[in-house]
Amino acid sequence: MPNDRLIAIIEDFEKTLLELVQRHRITHEEYRKATEVVLASVQAGEGSILFDVFLEAETLDVESAHRKGSPLGLLGPFYLPGAPRLEPPNMMPRRPDEKGDTLIFRGAVRSTTGEALPFAEFDMWQADADGNYSGIMPGIPAWNLRGRFGTAVDGTFEVTTIQPAPYPVPGDGPIGGVLRELGRHLYRPAHLHLQVTAPDHEVLTTQLYFADGDYLATDAANAVRDGLIAPVELDGDVRIATYDFVLEPHTAR
Amino acid sequence: MPNDRLIAIIEDFEKTLLELVQRHRITHEEYRKATEVVLASVQAGEGSILFDVFLEAETLDVESAHRKGSPLGLLGPFYLPGAPRLEPPNMMPRRPDEKGDTLIFRGAVRSTTGEALPFAEFDMWQADADGNYSGIMPGIPAWNLRGRFGTAVDGTFEVTTIQPAPYPVPGDGPIGGVLRELGRHLYRPAHLHLQVTAPDHEVLTTQLYFADGDYLATDAANAVRDGLIAPVELDGDVRIATYDFVLEPHTAR
Repeated sequence: MPNDRLIAIIEDFEKTLLELVQRHRITHEEYRKATEVVLASVQAGEGSILFDVFLEAETLDVESAHRKGSPLGLLGPFYLPGAPRLEPPNMMPRRPDEKGDTLIFRGAVRSTTGEALPFAEFDMWQADADGNYSGIMPGIPAWNLRGRFGTAVDGTFEVTTIQPAPYPVPGDGPIGGVLRELGRHLYRPAHLHLQVTAPDHEVLTTQLYFADGDYLATDAANAVRDGLIAPVELDGDVRIATYDFVLEPHTAR
Repeated sequence: MPNDRLIAIIEDFEKTLLELVQRHRITHEEYRKATEVVLASVQAGEGSILFDVFLEAETLDVESAHRKGSPLGLLGPFYLPGAPRLEPPNMMPRRPDEKGDTLIFRGAVRSTTGEALPFAEFDMWQADADGNYSGIMPGIPAWNLRGRFGTAVDGTFEVTTIQPAPYPVPGDGPIGGVLRELGRHLYRPAHLHLQVTAPDHEVLTTQLYFADGDYLATDAANAVRDGLIAPVELDGDVRIATYDFVLEPHTAR
């Protein structure tokens, strides 16, 4: 980041904050309390949550606005590299008694040029029906509900998994306290995490939500975007969600 | 702070930050870098400096705007309660070889009603000619350049000390790095710290600067205010600074 850009942003940031202090006539005692919450959050290991909950997704919108491809989503703290490679029919690793409705997730991957991308690869990870991730929450088998799979020759894909549950951001620490004082719930809507790669195209990291999901309008992380909500059909007890991904070709370097 | 006030401020704060992100098209990488600086600052023990350097003084202006008394200043991190009580002629505790020009600081204390306050008390602390504080920097005698003294029957006061030096905010950590990247120096202008009390009046905590001082317009802590700059006369090698303090009567409770 060039120095003059940093200076312009920080000076505007200062001006903006000073105006906020004046506009609300924020007292020194209130200021002190606010900085204590920030310090307590960082000391409790929640520093990244503090900022991310309120602000991170917005920075992706700035980049998405330049793009013709699918909107970007947050990588989030639960990604683990090296998930098992699946082969068709792409059954996500599951416990024998895995709870939750069966979810078939299908669609296609194409380039912004319209071209189908038969050599695209997905890396997908998700919470279980209790809202927990393998490799993060103890007691869940390694790589449960984490897997990599590819597109077919026509650029389509299909994977079978279970419906993830909504889950809360950590509620025991300072951030939970702030959200509660604001009268907000702590939940993120149910979502699938995805990284999609294809030769000669930019990596797409995103999160997909379900059109019939709870908390879509009040995501505690402010990360839901219209372009990231997948429609859902029901086939008996099976849920079928569809989404077509659009990747951007590598820009000339 | 009532909950609805908190909600209004935080919602405005979020809106303001989102607008800043959009206005400058701040990228996710830049966002991530900024949050890392904040986290590193807190982890380096500079969290309070981070906010205070940019914002704290402004919250005092909000309170000063309601007041008819002298402007408020920051207490700062170097106050120590229990400084020795001086008797006229109020010579501040000094080392035999204390460096720096002699400074006579004199003036009066009155109420916003105009009444002289003969029973006012000062608690004053300051840096030495190297910019260091006793009780903070090892090797300086206890209570050096720290003392309490009172006003005379007509509400006037006089204390003899040495001219403090400007000194930098900590430069080794993340905050110093940010200020340097912004092309700013790290210095605070020379100042006296004061707490003034008088019966039936509000405590006044403030900092006084010198009209002939360096860095007045570019204080690293953004804390200098016009109403806190004392004029200085020279009498040979002796500097004479004058300031009249105005205290606010206790509000009815």
